[in-house]
Amino acid sequence: MQSPTPSEGLLADEYALEMMRAYWLAGQHRRRVVKEVFFRKAPFQGRLALAVGINQVADYLLNLKLTEDDLQYIASLGFEPEFVEHLRGLRFTGDMYAVAEGTFVFPGEPIITLVGPIEELTYVEARVLNIVNPQTLVATKAYRVVEAAEGDPILEMGLRRAQGGDASIYHSRAAYIAGVAGTSNLEAGRLFGIPAKGTHAHALVMLGGDEKEAFRLWAQSQIKLGRNPTFLVDTYDSLRSGLPNAIAVAREMGIRIGAIRIDSGDLAYLSKKCRKILDDEGFKDAQIIASGDLDEYVIRDLKLQKAPIDMWGVGTNMVVAADQPSLGGVYKMSAVEENGAWSPRIKVSENPEKVTHPGGPKQLIRFRCRETGYYLADLLMLPDEPLPKPDQPFLIFDPVHTWKRTCLRNFEVENLLITYVRDGRRAIPRRSPAEVTAEARERVATQRQRFYEEIQRLTNPAAYKVDLSEPLWKLKMQMLDAMTRH
Amino acid sequence: MQSPTPSEGLLADEYALEMMRAYWLAGQHRRRVVKEVFFRKAPFQGRLALAVGINQVADYLLNLKLTEDDLQYIASLGFEPEFVEHLRGLRFTGDMYAVAEGTFVFPGEPIITLVGPIEELTYVEARVLNIVNPQTLVATKAYRVVEAAEGDPILEMGLRRAQGGDASIYHSRAAYIAGVAGTSNLEAGRLFGIPAKGTHAHALVMLGGDEKEAFRLWAQSQIKLGRNPTFLVDTYDSLRSGLPNAIAVAREMGIRIGAIRIDSGDLAYLSKKCRKILDDEGFKDAQIIASGDLDEYVIRDLKLQKAPIDMWGVGTNMVVAADQPSLGGVYKMSAVEENGAWSPRIKVSENPEKVTHPGGPKQLIRFRCRETGYYLADLLMLPDEPLPKPDQPFLIFDPVHTWKRTCLRNFEVENLLITYVRDGRRAIPRRSPAEVTAEARERVATQRQRFYEEIQRLTNPAAYKVDLSEPLWKLKMQMLDAMTRH
Repeated sequence: MQSPTPSEGLLADEYALEMMRAYWLAGQHRRRVVKEVFFRKAPFQGRLALAVGINQVADYLLNLKLTEDDLQYIASLGFEPEFVEHLRGLRFTGDMYAVAEGTFVFPGEPIITLVGPIEELTYVEARVLNIVNPQTLVATKAYRVVEAAEGDPILEMGLRRAQGGDASIYHSRAAYIAGVAGTSNLEAGRLFGIPAKGTHAHALVMLGGDEKEAFRLWAQSQIKLGRNPTFLVDTYDSLRSGLPNAIAVAREMGIRIGAIRIDSGDLAYLSKKCRKILDDEGFKDAQIIASGDLDEYVIRDLKLQKAPIDMWGVGTNMVVAADQPSLGGVYKMSAVEENGAWSPRIKVSENPEKVTHPGGPKQLIRFRCRETGYYLADLLMLPDEPLPKPDQPFLIFDPVHTWKRTCLRNFEVENLLITYVRDGRRAIPRRSPAEVTAEARERVATQRQRFYEEIQRLTNPAAYKVDLSEPLWKLKMQMLDAMTRH
Repeated sequence: MQSPTPSEGLLADEYALEMMRAYWLAGQHRRRVVKEVFFRKAPFQGRLALAVGINQVADYLLNLKLTEDDLQYIASLGFEPEFVEHLRGLRFTGDMYAVAEGTFVFPGEPIITLVGPIEELTYVEARVLNIVNPQTLVATKAYRVVEAAEGDPILEMGLRRAQGGDASIYHSRAAYIAGVAGTSNLEAGRLFGIPAKGTHAHALVMLGGDEKEAFRLWAQSQIKLGRNPTFLVDTYDSLRSGLPNAIAVAREMGIRIGAIRIDSGDLAYLSKKCRKILDDEGFKDAQIIASGDLDEYVIRDLKLQKAPIDMWGVGTNMVVAADQPSLGGVYKMSAVEENGAWSPRIKVSENPEKVTHPGGPKQLIRFRCRETGYYLADLLMLPDEPLPKPDQPFLIFDPVHTWKRTCLRNFEVENLLITYVRDGRRAIPRRSPAEVTAEARERVATQRQRFYEEIQRLTNPAAYKVDLSEPLWKLKMQMLDAMTRH
């Protein structure tokens, strides 16, 4: 087969078309609604996530259009010509509000809010989630790996196990935003300005069969670029063959060893042994790079055992988010326009966490303590509520355990939702992918300092408050009350 | 940011360039080598996998070329102009042998064998694995789901949770090859001829707030297409609201109910209750569709409890292969050309399963019993060995437990490896993506009949033999012996 070129315009669920057609037949397709993207539970049993993919969602919305091929395919599914003709005009004409790329976000709060005609908001649902869910997931996973490494550089090297080409580059980007130092993936490097790095593989050693000969060939090539070579020492036996051969070749050529890489065996044992040999033999400046099925837990444990590892190559477990490979981000209707006003909608459930927050496009603000500089809580508010005044105490309400209230004092507030798209037109400056990526990375680094480390802990972290304003809380209670009496 | 267009040519690891450069500087870059793609352990604690992505690998190899942008990026990494210039000519000029798309494959056997200059085979490693690993993984997962459903149709609906756009369409295709009946994904439908299907979402009911009104709107639109509508009944309460409203609307409009869909709650309890109500109310032909966090185990258990579900919508768990989201397919050198002959290479390891099979491009054959029609075992052979003769008993050797030998009689043999590419040129007929997909699906359906169900069991299945011919077994033993004495 010829590998076909996918059309982004058709990355949608068939049921979207079925519903759009039903609205269109009933003349309701232009009713304006509000849809919010949020997740109910943070991944990896943590408390937070790093929102990534937001700018790509804006691009998708701004470029939405069905091609002739797309329309022809839709016609082939049996939809009437008039409806297919109607779809020819499909564009995103609404508004998109969302957090900035790389923002720390929490369960229940809108990462993205879309406002616009129901037919448009119905069509884009699946692709919006398909962009934001995995990228946010992998950024969060990578952030945990970065935390575990306590400042050591991480190299993302998951291309060969990523779930496709897209996943390899966008997840590499997500990991870079979260703080990894570089990637093995050339295309991710090119597209997003991520430092692309690499050493060599076992195959280099196996080609001639002689490890020393292979190290000479390698060292000669690296020295020509002015680099002290990194040797992968575990092709046959790290301690008995790889490391002695690396040292012998370095001495013979009169060069320094940049680093050795260990890709198998027990990394704590081997790194300690190798460190001692390197130090004893006069290669104190040679670094040790470890790789092989690493994740945040293995890195943390190796650190606890004082493995003298300077840099970590992390592949599979990070790029596919192995212990939780999907984020359950959802896209729910919170209001419908009726006679020029927002009529709130709520989705009830027996599970209180699954009950949605009703109301028009909400405000999402973050309180920061003026004294300590730490973030205190997030707050969801109805569209027209005034912002809390820093000089007055402010009462916030837990959305599930409604008797829990907190009084905040001496704070400043940040508005988390930015207008990306207004009336179908770009409302943010046009910047290069590399610029957006670098800014997001910077944002993560800044925020990391501003959240208590208690909520960032890898296991059993403390919770962070995402509360409701009093008017929003009252609206929700009234609606629940009316529904359950019904 | 503008979402950039990825370049497939740069989907490679940086270390590939580093090694290619080392070979090139040493004048060794055109040495011919053999690389084999295989996995060491079947996913999901099973015994087999469905090889998918093979044709896409061939396409990738046939189209390999670096663009000016790619070369410029590589130059920016600090490689010398002469090497970048050399890369301008990079093409795949070698051979690709591989199993047919949709073939059942087993640990240790080559799914794809590449033969060609080491620089080319080094460059393509990561992308080849990036294509084959996830698609083979998800096809295998989907096959398990299909098995569990015992013939009931499955709808793949994982777009919103898939790990990216690529993953959504290629994994939808993988699932279709494995036997699912259709997909929610319009683009997957268009590209690969998969039936695209869908019903409606909770949002349709929430728009007006009145479930009966929403069902009327929906039914009217579906009836116009000549379909009996499927109603999603769990927006508020399946038994107290959704199903009674669906029945009321059907009666009022004088139509049949095509199906009801239940997306939450206990699916065994609700499907039984709903079935009884539908039957009692005269809707015996209305089907029940279930969805919501399904996988092969949940479906099997619901079947055991006799849940009267006719069709299954399966999303997240299948599309990301939730319980094992990566396949550890590897790409190992098995021989290097020396003076016109293949000099074997072996990668040793303390773990016997990790020791590779040495030797030039191997033959992979499958024995089938003439009497029962069942497959008996697979066999790896050196390139020039004659095929086993059906009328003579044949002895095969276990590659790990070398004292285990099996004598086969009364068989026919199938050659599993097809030549896809020879000397860099297409060696298979050009067919459309839909044709290749349909054929692969047919192949899976046929093979399913020919493997003992013992090895297809979801939990604790029996093993299937992948053995070595006597010459291959002897070569391996000699090499291991020489290595360990060394």
